[in-house]
Amino acid sequence: MKNRKRESNPKHADAPSLKPQSEAAKRSGIGEIDLRILEALQDDCRARLESIAKELRIPKSTVHYRIRRLEQAGVIERYSAKLNASKLGKDYLAVVLVRAKYGPHYHQRIGKKIAVVPGVWAVYYVLGDNDFVLLIRANDRDDYMRTLEKISSMPDVERTSTQIVAKVIKEDPRITLT
Amino acid sequence: MKNRKRESNPKHADAPSLKPQSEAAKRSGIGEIDLRILEALQDDCRARLESIAKELRIPKSTVHYRIRRLEQAGVIERYSAKLNASKLGKDYLAVVLVRAKYGPHYHQRIGKKIAVVPGVWAVYYVLGDNDFVLLIRANDRDDYMRTLEKISSMPDVERTSTQIVAKVIKEDPRITLT
Amino acid sequence: MKNRKRESNPKHADAPSLKPQSEAAKRSGIGEIDLRILEALQDDCRARLESIAKELRIPKSTVHYRIRRLEQAGVIERYSAKLNASKLGKDYLAVVLVRAKYGPHYHQRIGKKIAVVPGVWAVYYVLGDNDFVLLIRANDRDDYMRTLEKISSMPDVERTSTQIVAKVIKEDPRITLT
Amino acid sequence: MKNRKRESNPKHADAPSLKPQSEAAKRSGIGEIDLRILEALQDDCRARLESIAKELRIPKSTVHYRIRRLEQAGVIERYSAKLNASKLGKDYLAVVLVRAKYGPHYHQRIGKKIAVVPGVWAVYYVLGDNDFVLLIRANDRDDYMRTLEKISSMPDVERTSTQIVAKVIKEDPRITLT
Amino acid sequence: MKNRKRESNPKHADAPSLKPQSEAAKRSGIGEIDLRILEALQDDCRARLESIAKELRIPKSTVHYRIRRLEQAGVIERYSAKLNASKLGKDYLAVVLVRAKYGPHYHQRIGKKIAVVPGVWAVYYVLGDNDFVLLIRANDRDDYMRTLEKISSMPDVERTSTQIVAKVIKEDPRITLT
Amino acid sequence: MKNRKRESNPKHADAPSLKPQSEAAKRSGIGEIDLRILEALQDDCRARLESIAKELRIPKSTVHYRIRRLEQAGVIERYSAKLNASKLGKDYLAVVLVRAKYGPHYHQRIGKKIAVVPGVWAVYYVLGDNDFVLLIRANDRDDYMRTLEKISSMPDVERTSTQIVAKVIKEDPRITLT
Amino acid sequence: MKNRKRESNPKHADAPSLKPQSEAAKRSGIGEIDLRILEALQDDCRARLESIAKELRIPKSTVHYRIRRLEQAGVIERYSAKLNASKLGKDYLAVVLVRAKYGPHYHQRIGKKIAVVPGVWAVYYVLGDNDFVLLIRANDRDDYMRTLEKISSMPDVERTSTQIVAKVIKEDPRITLT
Amino acid sequence: MKNRKRESNPKHADAPSLKPQSEAAKRSGIGEIDLRILEALQDDCRARLESIAKELRIPKSTVHYRIRRLEQAGVIERYSAKLNASKLGKDYLAVVLVRAKYGPHYHQRIGKKIAVVPGVWAVYYVLGDNDFVLLIRANDRDDYMRTLEKISSMPDVERTSTQIVAKVIKEDPRITLT
Repeated sequence: MKNRKRESNPKHADAPSLKPQSEAAKRSGIGEIDLRILEALQDDCRARLESIAKELRIPKSTVHYRIRRLEQAGVIERYSAKLNASKLGKDYLAVVLVRAKYGPHYHQRIGKKIAVVPGVWAVYYVLGDNDFVLLIRANDRDDYMRTLEKISSMPDVERTSTQIVAKVIKEDPRITLT
Repeated sequence: MKNRKRESNPKHADAPSLKPQSEAAKRSGIGEIDLRILEALQDDCRARLESIAKELRIPKSTVHYRIRRLEQAGVIERYSAKLNASKLGKDYLAVVLVRAKYGPHYHQRIGKKIAVVPGVWAVYYVLGDNDFVLLIRANDRDDYMRTLEKISSMPDVERTSTQIVAKVIKEDPRITLT
Repeated sequence: MKNRKRESNPKHADAPSLKPQSEAAKRSGIGEIDLRILEALQDDCRARLESIAKELRIPKSTVHYRIRRLEQAGVIERYSAKLNASKLGKDYLAVVLVRAKYGPHYHQRIGKKIAVVPGVWAVYYVLGDNDFVLLIRANDRDDYMRTLEKISSMPDVERTSTQIVAKVIKEDPRITLT
Repeated sequence: MKNRKRESNPKHADAPSLKPQSEAAKRSGIGEIDLRILEALQDDCRARLESIAKELRIPKSTVHYRIRRLEQAGVIERYSAKLNASKLGKDYLAVVLVRAKYGPHYHQRIGKKIAVVPGVWAVYYVLGDNDFVLLIRANDRDDYMRTLEKISSMPDVERTSTQIVAKVIKEDPRITLT
Repeated sequence: MKNRKRESNPKHADAPSLKPQSEAAKRSGIGEIDLRILEALQDDCRARLESIAKELRIPKSTVHYRIRRLEQAGVIERYSAKLNASKLGKDYLAVVLVRAKYGPHYHQRIGKKIAVVPGVWAVYYVLGDNDFVLLIRANDRDDYMRTLEKISSMPDVERTSTQIVAKVIKEDPRITLT
Repeated sequence: MKNRKRESNPKHADAPSLKPQSEAAKRSGIGEIDLRILEALQDDCRARLESIAKELRIPKSTVHYRIRRLEQAGVIERYSAKLNASKLGKDYLAVVLVRAKYGPHYHQRIGKKIAVVPGVWAVYYVLGDNDFVLLIRANDRDDYMRTLEKISSMPDVERTSTQIVAKVIKEDPRITLT
Repeated sequence: MKNRKRESNPKHADAPSLKPQSEAAKRSGIGEIDLRILEALQDDCRARLESIAKELRIPKSTVHYRIRRLEQAGVIERYSAKLNASKLGKDYLAVVLVRAKYGPHYHQRIGKKIAVVPGVWAVYYVLGDNDFVLLIRANDRDDYMRTLEKISSMPDVERTSTQIVAKVIKEDPRITLT
Repeated sequence: MKNRKRESNPKHADAPSLKPQSEAAKRSGIGEIDLRILEALQDDCRARLESIAKELRIPKSTVHYRIRRLEQAGVIERYSAKLNASKLGKDYLAVVLVRAKYGPHYHQRIGKKIAVVPGVWAVYYVLGDNDFVLLIRANDRDDYMRTLEKISSMPDVERTSTQIVAKVIKEDPRITLT
């Protein structure tokens, strides 16, 4: 079907070929055009549909229709302004390794409790020496300490190890799609 | 001046009081109104200015002017669609701890080389037992292996330790501002 | 096709239902009947086809045909007598964690060199603090020492950590299929 | 050269000398002929007795008798088809290091409980920093997670550390005998 | 104001320029002259005011006034003789890493209890693998053992790791100010 | 001689008895009176001799003479104002564990190089998993980073591990003498 | 023969039965009587043969003959006075874990070099995270430091970790034989 | 040269100077002659007094008297035959690192309990990451396992880490005295 569409758009026949799509994307019925639209929206979601359409050489109505479909499918979760944490004084960052006490479904139970602590913006349950990796953003050391105190005083948290971020070399949550 | 503005907007006198602002924000001349606008834009940057203005009980022109200023100051870096990595088949995630060989300015040199490896979306230079913490997103194990191979074959990388993410409990890069 | 077969074998309609098959098995066209045959062959590959056929309530010719097909597809790799290592005096076992020097494709290069050392019966390239996990079987300590010496004297092996097996609580390489 | 020798010894009565046998094998009364038969059965246990007899230049009746004896002595435990785990979709493998809470006979008690968890195909009680090394085979990450959850929720399990297998470089449980 | 003063002291106009002051010092209203006085007092707090005044080319009355102010502000905490620990037989030194049991405000509670153990002269609550780093001075091994015993028998102390100091290469608590 | 002095001061016969002195102090000929004088000077080295004499119930001339002798013997190294680091903006503190490359007299060579890096106020050569423990004082994170960069770029430094000090619970270099 | 002897000594028929001997002892032809003699000689090798003979209820000539044989077989290596290290001022003890650089036969090569360093009284090549465990006896810290310096400056020694012995709770090299 | 000196001192009363004696030895009143006698007795405690006397060029009566004194002072603890563990089948050796649960006087309490476990011939209470280092001698793996089981089932033992000794490169408990 993807090919059919492209055939009906002969003038785009010379569009550069994409990398082979992931299996999951293929199964979700997400085609090359979708990926290109998503990429455009990641870079600038306030761009006008006309410019995306022109860039991808497809009708504006197609862009509109596809975005609607991707939103409904939950592929697009939100349109969000990316802010500069440093200029907002939120540059006391830490990666925290957490060990928890084992028990039935401990990782769901504890993970959720940690996730709602203010300042904790990512909680990964990992397989390895530690149970969780957290990413924390604070105003300064004292603010960080308050956040850490909330986590280390949870009865199921056994140990935390803070790695203060000395420098953010890259932090770009956009997903490489093509 | 912040206070003056709020005084000249008596109908907003009952707006909820905000947390004390961070030192840095204060010094950058970012006031409460700015923080509320930023928060709105983080949640939905395609929202119409009218609705933001109404929500914050300030004139639309103020919203417009302030956003322009925050963009110019680099506080707003980008407007970006937040995608669901899992639905795009990008759900082989790993947190990688990296040790590098020491040398003058090694962390800048190596950090930058790692940052451009496809799949690596965050590179933190940390103070602790490791030198870098990386966040990596891949399609599947083989895709991850190719990424890791690129990193581990760098002459200055001494050791990597992969922690496969079993579950993303939270990953929300929005900054808590108020 | 799987369903068709079972439909044409109405007398087996009451055969117990199996667990949902894995995605991979499904894609390889391996059906429930195949999995049951494989399981029988894992338990006793010298069993007579008749008894397997009777057990599974399918014609002997089907069993024969399917085994042939599974052999050709490489699903069945070998028919092998499982020996008791302890009664053969091969009960000095060790799990060895190996760290190697990084470099391009180091894990393939080094992994292969380790795999041919006599006594090493399993070599896993793992993601974590170590690079390889080895399973080694030796006659006694001195025999083990000779094996270890061969590995630790490889120029690309940085460190090994031997965990002597005090007791084999379970070691059954048969795959649970249903 | 081995073959030449054997040819010049048509009666086979003085078959070429093997490597010095292990003490244990000697004490069990397992001789060189037995080891050769066992090796043949490890490579192909469905081979016809005639071909083994021919290969080893001994009467078929001897092969038959000796196999019977080795089966009765428990040296041969089973005849089993060796399957390709990957083609069956069972290629999410992990090596898990487990620490348990100490107590009288803890390793027997806990080891047995872990051994019956589906997916766990080997449990080694080891001397070192950890108490057990497990080998686990799962269909995929979620399947693995269910297995791990069963282990980590046991009250006597203190900590587990998963090392995801990135590549199986070798896994051949056959025992080198000669 | 800082500049005004220097202007009223024209003959010191050629005093060497200082490093840019820290933000905190600036905010506390501590100027260059103050830093120089503090440095002089760190090196020899029994020096006569005249010699400090002469060294800094400012009136003795200014020196007197400023010292008074710095004392009142708590910038100067004490005037103390620095003794040679080794000549007093206090040269069994240790750096001790302590892990404590987590709980609400555990670090304040436990930290204070450790701080009053005789021989413990520094207690740092640190972010990392350990909770506290202690510096201990004892007469000899037995004396050290008594100190350690007091700490390790506290119910909230989980583990200590002693690093005996083999040699004090530097220990100079004076703060570099200029 | 110590006793003689006290006998000649009969009115002080009821002075509280001291703890048994350390062997080293005894051998250096440092008596109880000396220890009391040293303690007084640690607490306030600008105290008037009269007040020390009165406190210890000995003639002022004795105090004067003994202090002179302790200075000459190097027991008193310096008279120093103890400053409040935090009020001077020097409150980014770290304990750094350093591993160095081994070689003849490496600890003296490397230790000295580290000791002169600005901001490093203590360097301990320790026996254990690490070679050196450093205490570092910096203005802020960037200042600390410059210090760390100087250390980690030394060719003989193999690895550093920073433990950021979250809170100074105690830091009092005075030696307990009695 | 062991039994025969005991039969020819009917009066000793009621001698307490011994633990089953080790395989190795049995194969070396060392019988129960030998073990009892060895035990006696471990406890007091200057005891008179008569008293040993009486204690074991065997003729003195047998004791004499057997000791001669055990000496010749190398079972008895030496007769040595066991001294009290502490009373000789040799009570600065350390257990040192050593990691060496790998290479062909590195453990023999390096082990021997370490074994001749004065103060090192035991060198064990171990299987685990470390390569060697050393036991060291020194007069004091400075003496220990000289010993350690000799080891850490060897080009093949990668890392040492000293564990100072705080207390010798037991150190009795006598072998439990019965 | 040592010998020359000794020849020029026919009476031996002032035997050649030895290495500077340890402080402790000096304080115990142990002189050079004593140390030489002790050394002789460590090498061969069954040597005849005449030969020691001749070797040291002192009267036999002096040797006799001094030995008596050293025995009474507890400097000589025992005269013991040093046996070859390997020839007695006691060559399954392990170094075990033990962590215990903290509590008042835990190291004395637990240390003593461990010390009486058969097979444990040395128990050192150490300062570092572990609490105890044990030296264990067993007949074979099963024997070792029984010993370890006794230790790990003690309620106060938290963790043990066994390092199997692959080779005893040196084990000579004699103390270097001169």
